[in-house]
Amino acid sequence: MNKEVSPGFLGRLMTWGAVWRDIADKVSGADGLDSLNPDLPEEDARKIRVGLDDCLASRGGEVSARARAATLGRAYLSLNETGRARFLEILAREYATDHDRVRDTAAELLDVDRDDFATLQAAEGRMRDVLVPPRLRLLTQFNALPRGIKFLVDMRAELMRLARDNPALRGLERDLRDLLASWFDIGFLELQRITWNSPAAFLEKIITYEAVHEIQSWADLKDRLDHDRRLYAFVHPNMPEEPLIFVEVALVNGLASNVHDLLDLSAPALDPEEADTAIFYSISNAQAGLAGISFGNFLIKQVVERLSHSFPKVNTYSTLSPIPGFRPWLDRRLAEGEPGLLLPAERKTLAQVVAGNGDSDAAKATSGSKGSFKALIAEPDWPGREPVANALKGPLTRLCARYLVNERRPPRQEGRAGTVLDPVAHFHLTNGARVERLNWLGDRSAKGMAQSAGMMVNYLYKLNEIERNHEAYQGQGKVATSTAIRSLARA
Amino acid sequence: MNKEVSPGFLGRLMTWGAVWRDIADKVSGADGLDSLNPDLPEEDARKIRVGLDDCLASRGGEVSARARAATLGRAYLSLNETGRARFLEILAREYATDHDRVRDTAAELLDVDRDDFATLQAAEGRMRDVLVPPRLRLLTQFNALPRGIKFLVDMRAELMRLARDNPALRGLERDLRDLLASWFDIGFLELQRITWNSPAAFLEKIITYEAVHEIQSWADLKDRLDHDRRLYAFVHPNMPEEPLIFVEVALVNGLASNVHDLLDLSAPALDPEEADTAIFYSISNAQAGLAGISFGNFLIKQVVERLSHSFPKVNTYSTLSPIPGFRPWLDRRLAEGEPGLLLPAERKTLAQVVAGNGDSDAAKATSGSKGSFKALIAEPDWPGREPVANALKGPLTRLCARYLVNERRPPRQEGRAGTVLDPVAHFHLTNGARVERLNWLGDRSAKGMAQSAGMMVNYLYKLNEIERNHEAYQGQGKVATSTAIRSLARA
Amino acid sequence: MNKEVSPGFLGRLMTWGAVWRDIADKVSGADGLDSLNPDLPEEDARKIRVGLDDCLASRGGEVSARARAATLGRAYLSLNETGRARFLEILAREYATDHDRVRDTAAELLDVDRDDFATLQAAEGRMRDVLVPPRLRLLTQFNALPRGIKFLVDMRAELMRLARDNPALRGLERDLRDLLASWFDIGFLELQRITWNSPAAFLEKIITYEAVHEIQSWADLKDRLDHDRRLYAFVHPNMPEEPLIFVEVALVNGLASNVHDLLDLSAPALDPEEADTAIFYSISNAQAGLAGISFGNFLIKQVVERLSHSFPKVNTYSTLSPIPGFRPWLDRRLAEGEPGLLLPAERKTLAQVVAGNGDSDAAKATSGSKGSFKALIAEPDWPGREPVANALKGPLTRLCARYLVNERRPPRQEGRAGTVLDPVAHFHLTNGARVERLNWLGDRSAKGMAQSAGMMVNYLYKLNEIERNHEAYQGQGKVATSTAIRSLARA
Amino acid sequence: MNKEVSPGFLGRLMTWGAVWRDIADKVSGADGLDSLNPDLPEEDARKIRVGLDDCLASRGGEVSARARAATLGRAYLSLNETGRARFLEILAREYATDHDRVRDTAAELLDVDRDDFATLQAAEGRMRDVLVPPRLRLLTQFNALPRGIKFLVDMRAELMRLARDNPALRGLERDLRDLLASWFDIGFLELQRITWNSPAAFLEKIITYEAVHEIQSWADLKDRLDHDRRLYAFVHPNMPEEPLIFVEVALVNGLASNVHDLLDLSAPALDPEEADTAIFYSISNAQAGLAGISFGNFLIKQVVERLSHSFPKVNTYSTLSPIPGFRPWLDRRLAEGEPGLLLPAERKTLAQVVAGNGDSDAAKATSGSKGSFKALIAEPDWPGREPVANALKGPLTRLCARYLVNERRPPRQEGRAGTVLDPVAHFHLTNGARVERLNWLGDRSAKGMAQSAGMMVNYLYKLNEIERNHEAYQGQGKVATSTAIRSLARA
Repeated sequence: MNKEVSPGFLGRLMTWGAVWRDIADKVSGADGLDSLNPDLPEEDARKIRVGLDDCLASRGGEVSARARAATLGRAYLSLNETGRARFLEILAREYATDHDRVRDTAAELLDVDRDDFATLQAAEGRMRDVLVPPRLRLLTQFNALPRGIKFLVDMRAELMRLARDNPALRGLERDLRDLLASWFDIGFLELQRITWNSPAAFLEKIITYEAVHEIQSWADLKDRLDHDRRLYAFVHPNMPEEPLIFVEVALVNGLASNVHDLLDLSAPALDPEEADTAIFYSISNAQAGLAGISFGNFLIKQVVERLSHSFPKVNTYSTLSPIPGFRPWLDRRLAEGEPGLLLPAERKTLAQVVAGNGDSDAAKATSGSKGSFKALIAEPDWPGREPVANALKGPLTRLCARYLVNERRPPRQEGRAGTVLDPVAHFHLTNGARVERLNWLGDRSAKGMAQSAGMMVNYLYKLNEIERNHEAYQGQGKVATSTAIRSLARA
Repeated sequence: MNKEVSPGFLGRLMTWGAVWRDIADKVSGADGLDSLNPDLPEEDARKIRVGLDDCLASRGGEVSARARAATLGRAYLSLNETGRARFLEILAREYATDHDRVRDTAAELLDVDRDDFATLQAAEGRMRDVLVPPRLRLLTQFNALPRGIKFLVDMRAELMRLARDNPALRGLERDLRDLLASWFDIGFLELQRITWNSPAAFLEKIITYEAVHEIQSWADLKDRLDHDRRLYAFVHPNMPEEPLIFVEVALVNGLASNVHDLLDLSAPALDPEEADTAIFYSISNAQAGLAGISFGNFLIKQVVERLSHSFPKVNTYSTLSPIPGFRPWLDRRLAEGEPGLLLPAERKTLAQVVAGNGDSDAAKATSGSKGSFKALIAEPDWPGREPVANALKGPLTRLCARYLVNERRPPRQEGRAGTVLDPVAHFHLTNGARVERLNWLGDRSAKGMAQSAGMMVNYLYKLNEIERNHEAYQGQGKVATSTAIRSLARA
Repeated sequence: MNKEVSPGFLGRLMTWGAVWRDIADKVSGADGLDSLNPDLPEEDARKIRVGLDDCLASRGGEVSARARAATLGRAYLSLNETGRARFLEILAREYATDHDRVRDTAAELLDVDRDDFATLQAAEGRMRDVLVPPRLRLLTQFNALPRGIKFLVDMRAELMRLARDNPALRGLERDLRDLLASWFDIGFLELQRITWNSPAAFLEKIITYEAVHEIQSWADLKDRLDHDRRLYAFVHPNMPEEPLIFVEVALVNGLASNVHDLLDLSAPALDPEEADTAIFYSISNAQAGLAGISFGNFLIKQVVERLSHSFPKVNTYSTLSPIPGFRPWLDRRLAEGEPGLLLPAERKTLAQVVAGNGDSDAAKATSGSKGSFKALIAEPDWPGREPVANALKGPLTRLCARYLVNERRPPRQEGRAGTVLDPVAHFHLTNGARVERLNWLGDRSAKGMAQSAGMMVNYLYKLNEIERNHEAYQGQGKVATSTAIRSLARA
Repeated sequence: MNKEVSPGFLGRLMTWGAVWRDIADKVSGADGLDSLNPDLPEEDARKIRVGLDDCLASRGGEVSARARAATLGRAYLSLNETGRARFLEILAREYATDHDRVRDTAAELLDVDRDDFATLQAAEGRMRDVLVPPRLRLLTQFNALPRGIKFLVDMRAELMRLARDNPALRGLERDLRDLLASWFDIGFLELQRITWNSPAAFLEKIITYEAVHEIQSWADLKDRLDHDRRLYAFVHPNMPEEPLIFVEVALVNGLASNVHDLLDLSAPALDPEEADTAIFYSISNAQAGLAGISFGNFLIKQVVERLSHSFPKVNTYSTLSPIPGFRPWLDRRLAEGEPGLLLPAERKTLAQVVAGNGDSDAAKATSGSKGSFKALIAEPDWPGREPVANALKGPLTRLCARYLVNERRPPRQEGRAGTVLDPVAHFHLTNGARVERLNWLGDRSAKGMAQSAGMMVNYLYKLNEIERNHEAYQGQGKVATSTAIRSLARA
């Protein structure tokens, strides 16, 4: 559900940079930081080090230190990818903890009497102190700048990307994650209902960040904010112009089975007072730089609570979700040539369809083998050919149920069950939902076909089951399902 | 500048407790936590442990964990001082770090190759993880409750008091301080101008928290919010109903020399557009639980910036400050019988006054010794006796200048200068102000007489000197002063 | 329920005047208007006329005209009572309609063919135009000034006072009333809940304007804003800092019978969720200048609607009201010596009490006559003397019921019933309430004793009766009552 | 600058109608009003009359009367054009003033002694009362409904259209205009800066209402809200979701000469701090129902004041305006065959161009006559043919200057000058601006060509001339111009 850092990242940072100029201008001694070579060659790297040292030395007091941070921030923003990688590596390596002091303190710790609680605490406290690297203090100072917190969030997004190939950056990335995890504690977040009366600038970001079903236009967005829809976002009070995560809800009658009806601009709005079901049809994380800091489960539960106050008639809370990993998983299975993938009856039906259809060429290429199945689903237009689609429905839904319920990652600990393979399923199961229903051809868009052969799934949130489901999944890896899904998965 | 936890602490917590009840009611398994013996005897302590374990186990997901925190919070609030001390000690001792894992990790750290940066970072990361005690995760969960952050701030105030005599609590207190320091980072604070149009509930807190010159009534407060006054406070967005620190400013002509004129309700308001001087006459920390987390210097500098935009004619920024430590220091000196305290000329003048005044009894008791000085200033009514007051003015101002500028604490490090003794002086000197002028009988209230023999001092904030003064004081311990103060202190 | 213009009227206007200075300064040609003799002698009156003419001539466009209005407003504010009376009389007489044009248009009107609808309309339109006096255009222009609408409201308060003795001002007063009635149309008013979080400046006005049970202190006010209380006010969006009218409500169990319990600061707050009754115990008009422009009935009905949403358990809406005209009416009756005022049994009981009490002197002075009754209630301490109070209870409640229900003003039209004498009763009966219960010694304050011999009354708002009661009272003058009150009034 | 009632009028009213349903449902006796035949045949008209009578009779008090108004409002909204015309005619004719009472009062008025001021005032007051028709009270009651004021504004727009052909409606239209003029007094309006952070719903209305240069898309709108642009609107506090009038401003260097540069989405934003000129390039009235209630001049002057505070470097305030009446006027002149329209030299040049261009056909058709001029400008592509465009520039700009400055409407009063013919010119001249510069081909859009042969004009607002210009134009009909325009107009 995450989005890559948008290409406008640099552009936006540049704008803030302009805002910071005035702050930076008040500090003397930032010589040369405003005209760096974007690649940050060594002679410019030296200027960066001087700036970082000045900032840490807190010359002129804490207020001046923050001003120096502005200078460094602007310098960072003026660099290209190469320059930034260098900047971050300097920060990571040269402003890390003092390893010698860490070692000395570790040795001290080993000397303390295990039964002397107060002394142990004090020694551990000292260790905690020496483990705070200077680079963390530097990062913290950006928070006092206008939009400084967004700067740090986006810096982490860059850092995560760079750290994949550069282990030396991982410690810095980790520092930043911990800092952001503290600042974005769920207690600070505000749940906001977003409406057509919200600021256009905010709505524009919703359009940009929507990651599940792309918003095509302002008219499309307006439709998603109509009387029978709700859109809720978590917002941080110090970053009010940015959604952190948001969910789109449709108030309908009965479980929604396909997303095209939900997104149809020409469909009339229903009377939400009469709805009995709330469908969560899109959840998008908006900040790549907050990956790993979870608030999705809080979002859904708080929205359920809000909706239950506003709409007492609603008694069903469910998602209509994509299954992003089904086709990739199936394709791997097919590539491996797993023989038992199709049941004999399924294989037979498929063969008949191919023959009966007079699909002679296709039939020749694939007849008598599970290859025919592979070939059939490889053709993008199969949903339009009714006999083929009918024949595929059985095996695909069965395999999809199996994929959602039974396919697991390797367990982290010996003896425990692994989590399910599908990331969206894992998210909702962790939250205590259950796998309720598969919807054949619920999403016929190119993306839907590529992800899940057009299928969608409802995850049901039953309020009195959530806690039990959550524990069963967390503890024994048990997946809660409807009877129908259970039968399918077992077949 | 701090205030003790107000006696209403328990009462206020009780109110929030009521707010939390609904949240807590949603969790099963909080058996017995709502009817504890306020002393928390051992059988009830056991229930607390069960509650803490449940909360940590995150049974039912993070949302349920927060609900369990509400139950524990209410339990805490139902205890008396004895019960709370026990509760906190359980938390401190039994939910501390796993010392064995800490030792193992320390041993690991000592084994890492010093030159292998990435591995070092990873090992240090593991150490940082094992140093996070379970009790910290418990505390964090209170933040998601309504007013949970204020609960934690006030809990720290209690903890600081209890930890003075109980070293076992110091680790917990330190955890809480670090948590709050992160959450109350200056970047999150909002500078608000407080006016007579602010909510009465907020103004009531200003009355309660004012710690320098007590606010006598709502009429007194209104006077301090008049056209020629300003009151600014730092507020945290998640605790908007509470000031963190606030400063009161008078817009006047020329340096104010006594606080009685400033606080005189019958004095007419001046036209602030005509003022050339801004006097900061009161700064109060409002949250005892945030002691040691400094934002005072940010406050003054941000207020100076705001004022300079609104009032371009104002060219002088100064305090009118108490000198809380002068009389205690002087009394210690006098008790020690330091012979050189008075200059010969001063001693002579004093003797004449005593004799000439026919103060025969007093004279007899003190004549020919520095005791006469001690006796004179011990009589509370001396400011009303003009000859005596005149004779005291010289030696007292001289000694006060000496006290402010030269009297130091022992240096923390060998070779460095110690900080000045007076806490208010230390605060302003650290901010880069200079000691500008002593004001004879600037505060004749009982408190003023007891603290500083009625004297007050102006600390001057000269914008182009602040950085230099700050560094000179931080670095070499040099105190910036006006020429007059320097001469006095040297005499 | 109205209050006189507060003594601070002039002072407040002066403040606004200062605000207007800048606006006024932009206009040339306001010669001499800023240094008038406060009495407005003839030579200064001439300057006023020039100002008024300039303003009407709209020299420099409408924007300049508004600036000229500022000059005139400041001039008005600088005058004393004599000067203002002169200013207003100039405005009233010299900027009235053009009487000749009115006569001509009247003559035209009489000429129009009665059946020619369009021509009639046009002629009436012309008449409406010539009836708009220049002074009305002048008044309108004050509305564009900051707080101009409050200026006009307060000007009308002055005008009403002056017009009592000066009929020449009545036309101007009427113009202003019509203008304000249009601007303060109920559709523009906003119902606001006032709480302890409201601006102190607004709350201060509530203290000032409370007209029924004086608010003694800020603590008293805070008590009236506690959990089990509500205070609602109507506010106009262009005069947001001023309440227009406000009502105080207590959420209780059962009909409240005395005001002392309601106003007792030491009484604990109830749980409002458990209340079954909402008591409206004080309604105050805040703006003397809006007298005759009614919104009281809207206020009560809108508050009832709000409360019924927030507190579904509340099923009774009632006032606890003063009876301001009872004692004055009774005293007039007694002075007239009406013989049948007391029933024989009542007279006998009273005589016994007097005799039995050994009140020989009093007895002698009043025995055998209704004078004894008169004398007894004239002594201020009778409520403390139990036998006397017991004996008075019967006749006083009976007479009070009679006063409330049967005593009427002369009817406006032949054949219709007159309205009830008591102004508060008339207000609530017009709103559709019924007289429910008399409360013996419900208000023992000096004011309560003087107004109603300590009695208070509950007017009950039964939602399904309101419309019927209103019509019965408006149409046939029928007063809705409980059975008990009806029996009492008939006795 | 006005726009017709949008086709969505009915739809929007229907939505409010839904809001009103709940209110209306509370009243009994609205029999049949919710199922009218949209044409309002006579049997349904009778139901309307009953509803109107009930509403006026205020049965059940004022609150009920407002509820009845809701019923009537919904009934009105359910009608089609025919039905509404009938509804309005019933209101206009049957709820007009009581003509007999008007006549009687007129007769009374003629009887009053001219010198008895107070009696005259009272009689005039009575006349004013009888001139208030019942229909006005009915209209007023809509104001208490949600969005009732917008209902009335839109009703007037319909009424104005219908009254053009139906004089019987004019009195009602006039009543409504007077009511709205009082409620939309300039003193109640709030000037709001509209930005990209404004509610999308509000911005959508800006797109709809823009009447000068159509807004093509949300991207176009965003561009008009960029750093170097400003958009200000007047808003009424009781109709906050609707702009009343708005102006779009570009901050540029030097007088803008064509609108294409201003509206170019690909042009970079300038630094507004460096701009010396503010160009008002679009002013749109948003509410057809407020026609004739002027606030345009207040808007421009208040915006100038705001801008002068924010941008001290801006020293020129000017419009870039269309000339909507030039081509229509010119075409009328040409149709009349006015011989002196072109100067001899101009005629000669044109003839040469036609001949030299080898435009043999065109030349033949038009040669030797002023007809050639007519024919040339009739061809839509002339701006692209350089020699023709060059030859047309002289005569067209000259004639346009003449049109703007000299062409007048017939004077209202004998002896006074008439106002200028062009409505936009009249608007700005009344505001005190001067005609500064004509811009050749400043608007080559189809609309620009059709209105003004592609020309645009700058009206300059010089702050120290505004009052003088306004008076000269209002008084003697003198048009302020630059020297260049004056010469052109005289040629």
